Amino acid sequence: MTKDLFEFCCRMGDNTLVLGQRVSEWCGVAPVIEEDIALANMGLDLIGQTQLWLGLAGETEGQGRDADRLAFHRDVWDFRNVLLVEQPNGDFGQTLMRQFLFDAWHLEMLKALQSASHDQIAAIAEKSTKEVTYHLERSSDTVIGLGDGTEESHARMQAALDLLWPYAGEMFTADAVDKAIAEQGIAPDPASLRPAYDARLAEVLGEATLVRPVDDFAHQGGKTGVRHTEHLGHMLSSMQFLQRAYPDASW
Amino acid sequence: MTKDLFEFCCRMGDNTLVLGQRVSEWCGVAPVIEEDIALANMGLDLIGQTQLWLGLAGETEGQGRDADRLAFHRDVWDFRNVLLVEQPNGDFGQTLMRQFLFDAWHLEMLKALQSASHDQIAAIAEKSTKEVTYHLERSSDTVIGLGDGTEESHARMQAALDLLWPYAGEMFTADAVDKAIAEQGIAPDPASLRPAYDARLAEVLGEATLVRPVDDFAHQGGKTGVRHTEHLGHMLSSMQFLQRAYPDASW
Repeated sequence: MTKDLFEFCCRMGDNTLVLGQRVSEWCGVAPVIEEDIALANMGLDLIGQTQLWLGLAGETEGQGRDADRLAFHRDVWDFRNVLLVEQPNGDFGQTLMRQFLFDAWHLEMLKALQSASHDQIAAIAEKSTKEVTYHLERSSDTVIGLGDGTEESHARMQAALDLLWPYAGEMFTADAVDKAIAEQGIAPDPASLRPAYDARLAEVLGEATLVRPVDDFAHQGGKTGVRHTEHLGHMLSSMQFLQRAYPDASW
Repeated sequence: MTKDLFEFCCRMGDNTLVLGQRVSEWCGVAPVIEEDIALANMGLDLIGQTQLWLGLAGETEGQGRDADRLAFHRDVWDFRNVLLVEQPNGDFGQTLMRQFLFDAWHLEMLKALQSASHDQIAAIAEKSTKEVTYHLERSSDTVIGLGDGTEESHARMQAALDLLWPYAGEMFTADAVDKAIAEQGIAPDPASLRPAYDARLAEVLGEATLVRPVDDFAHQGGKTGVRHTEHLGHMLSSMQFLQRAYPDASW
């Protein structure tokens, strides 16, 4: 059970860590300053959530690893994020499409986790829900604005959706860890989040005049650690450089 | 004197290390397979030369650092390569223009070093001259072929030259290290290489129908370690990941 809980916390925390790091890459280079700051703020929210999830993971494991240790001293094969969040930023539209596809899942997951049988998890979920509600509002608005925008922005958003959609299915698959955690009343069965997700997508993509691709679970293996895409290792080499090069450094 | 010699060897070895690493980034993604293999081979030549230069640097220093230690465990501020070689690959033409601007200097430097008063340096120079003669032949041919090619390839090569030219001047500047090394009869005064370089450029750029920008020493500080461009740190985070993450790893 402890191992399953550790695994589950790593999955939640690695999602927010990897996506937060990706989003932070826009800092200083976003198309307009308001978006730049909004993206940076969202990145900070996600890193804040990471500290809670990975902090709990380390506590659960009980081997003295804290959130920083888990974030900066694991190699790629120990990361448990879904493949969607490690995909490169691409253009601004692609970044926001990735964000929307994740946020829509993330919010449903957090809402369900608020009634978890595990107090700390319920508390993390409650705090995170407030932030992620706002993330989803923003990413939905942007997907709609750009999807139902110019011919160019529409085409880019459709291309982003077509590119990223095959990664979305992984969020709804379950393995033995998910089943054990669900049986304990800690987290929902991932598949149970799908109807609300589909309804949200239908609404937003409809307004955005975008066509949802056919169901496709082509790419998975990230959350179970079976395989990651080539992008994660490159991100980690940059993200972890300081702590790898100066293992005893402190602020 | 030992310190100057160490510094000089690091400058030579960091040039070939950083350029070799940059060139290796094309492996598997060059426009045609013959170029892919040619670039990889050239990268290997440069890494081979690095082992000799940094090996000699470590020997000179006498503190137990070998070539690998110097390559993989120094941080960006200890690198002594000229800024030209750390510039990003850009497109294929930009990569080859960077190569040509470096090769033309490199060959003159190595030819002069063959008569160094330091036996090991003279030997490294002799071995390297053979390889670099071929590098320069290839990069010259490519600069000519693309410069005097289509309208598109011509425009790209001129843009590459305009972009990279401000970095070329650094190769001909001298500081106290260069002066001390020159006084010992080890290396030439960098400025003395300029006439042959200029003659070579006039010939190749002429055939390539490219216009050499006005003299410009705008960007320097790499070989003295005063400042590097932002690109070097990113390259090192990737190049050094394995040795940073697994300090005791061996083959």
